[in-house]
Amino acid sequence: MKKHGGRGTERFSRDSRADRPPAKPRPNAGAKPAQRPGDRAPVTHGFRRPSAELAALYGFHAVREALRNPRRQCLDLFATAAAAEKLAQDIEARGIAVHLVDSEALTARLGAEAVHQGVLLEARPLPSLDVTEIQTRSGVVLALDQITDPHNVGAILRTAAAFAVDAVIVTERNAPEFSGVLAKAASGGLEHAPVVEIVNLARALDQLGAAGYLRVGLDSEGPASLEDTPLSAPVALVLGAEGRGLRRLTREKCDVLARLDMPGAIKSLNVSNACAVALALTRTKLAK
Amino acid sequence: MKKHGGRGTERFSRDSRADRPPAKPRPNAGAKPAQRPGDRAPVTHGFRRPSAELAALYGFHAVREALRNPRRQCLDLFATAAAAEKLAQDIEARGIAVHLVDSEALTARLGAEAVHQGVLLEARPLPSLDVTEIQTRSGVVLALDQITDPHNVGAILRTAAAFAVDAVIVTERNAPEFSGVLAKAASGGLEHAPVVEIVNLARALDQLGAAGYLRVGLDSEGPASLEDTPLSAPVALVLGAEGRGLRRLTREKCDVLARLDMPGAIKSLNVSNACAVALALTRTKLAK
Repeated sequence: MKKHGGRGTERFSRDSRADRPPAKPRPNAGAKPAQRPGDRAPVTHGFRRPSAELAALYGFHAVREALRNPRRQCLDLFATAAAAEKLAQDIEARGIAVHLVDSEALTARLGAEAVHQGVLLEARPLPSLDVTEIQTRSGVVLALDQITDPHNVGAILRTAAAFAVDAVIVTERNAPEFSGVLAKAASGGLEHAPVVEIVNLARALDQLGAAGYLRVGLDSEGPASLEDTPLSAPVALVLGAEGRGLRRLTREKCDVLARLDMPGAIKSLNVSNACAVALALTRTKLAK
Repeated sequence: MKKHGGRGTERFSRDSRADRPPAKPRPNAGAKPAQRPGDRAPVTHGFRRPSAELAALYGFHAVREALRNPRRQCLDLFATAAAAEKLAQDIEARGIAVHLVDSEALTARLGAEAVHQGVLLEARPLPSLDVTEIQTRSGVVLALDQITDPHNVGAILRTAAAFAVDAVIVTERNAPEFSGVLAKAASGGLEHAPVVEIVNLARALDQLGAAGYLRVGLDSEGPASLEDTPLSAPVALVLGAEGRGLRRLTREKCDVLARLDMPGAIKSLNVSNACAVALALTRTKLAK
């Protein structure tokens, strides 16, 4: 709010919404705005209620990549003056109005645990693809078997986007919401890793098999290590939740099960780290 | 507390501490114990105050591996009856008394965010090694340049333990505490990845160089990818914090800088994922 406040407040409109009732006063938001000479008091804005039709995206990278994603329908952007200044180019390119708020208002909306970095984008969830709509580029897809932790799924999406994974397949049930914590952990990866939400993972694995995918289930009981498992593109890497692992039916739908052999005393990796190692090994093996 | 309550309460002593003042009543702990027929009301215990001499370890894997680690000095174990039952073998092998508590008492002590899984071990921090005391087994060490996020450092320790890394070098300042959140994220890795706390990372890198280590700094500006960088054991992989990266002096002390080349739209990985990928690549390259 300090250095960039003046320029920020002039560059961005304060409120341009006509399609919503006026903002209700909130108990915590803007309770004690720091009034400095030349500063305008932060305006308190109403936020949309959480719903299945709303993706609340916060954090610098998550919001920036969403603004840059033409497939993402953006509704309202709430930002501190400093954050709006940092995102100025992307805001202008998108042509979206900024509702200037103070950091405390965002914290009141998102909770004390949310590392919002001064910015919240209210947007629509991205449309989910169908298995048949996956475009083969790298030839690698991920299938997540009921991994529910949003930090882990977010980290997986970030890593999937970095490895140019063609799609991340998740079940509609027992998957986290694709916004908030997950989007923050994905650090923009949510905009780049196409998500395929399906009802039935076994059926999706059938479809992938019919489309020529080699379905590789990562399983500590697998007969060989991933390094020693012959791989060919296109390949679907199937990951289960920590502890539970792959469900029986998921395991049965895989063409091969493979272990990640760890030489150390701890035998299991965090699932996002396991995913990163599997993607690195797969990429190396497919490049040979 | 339900199924295993009866057996648990008989097997474990309720309180065997003589070296501490009696537990003070706590405002939240045990406020509404579920009184069922045959149940004894959970006893409220006092916990040690947080201090530099205390490692508060919680979560099933973190506590189990600590109990199994002969180098770890354990003080007091607080557990729900169910958690004590799950850890029974390790508790007996260690010969430690269990203070039975209810889950709410642990939450009151550790905070609502702590996934304590019904168990808290009060222990002494592990002694830190000196750079000269690192035992070369896998020939790989990690050096962390002011990575402060405890979740990330914990995940790195877990992955380091899985890859049998010989040591994880951290700076005394700007490093997180080696207990609590970090230990939970490390999922037992803290007991297996020897930590070397040093004052000055540049000096430690000098020492590693003198000891024959190839010092590889992971840096997005590196002249070649890690895959294309010749590696030889022993090797020190040097990682910086997300965003900031390696400090200038750290970079200068490395023999070579290497990039992790990502083919996708997102160019940077979460630091623990980057570490996992780097360790996987290094292991593959050294095995050749």
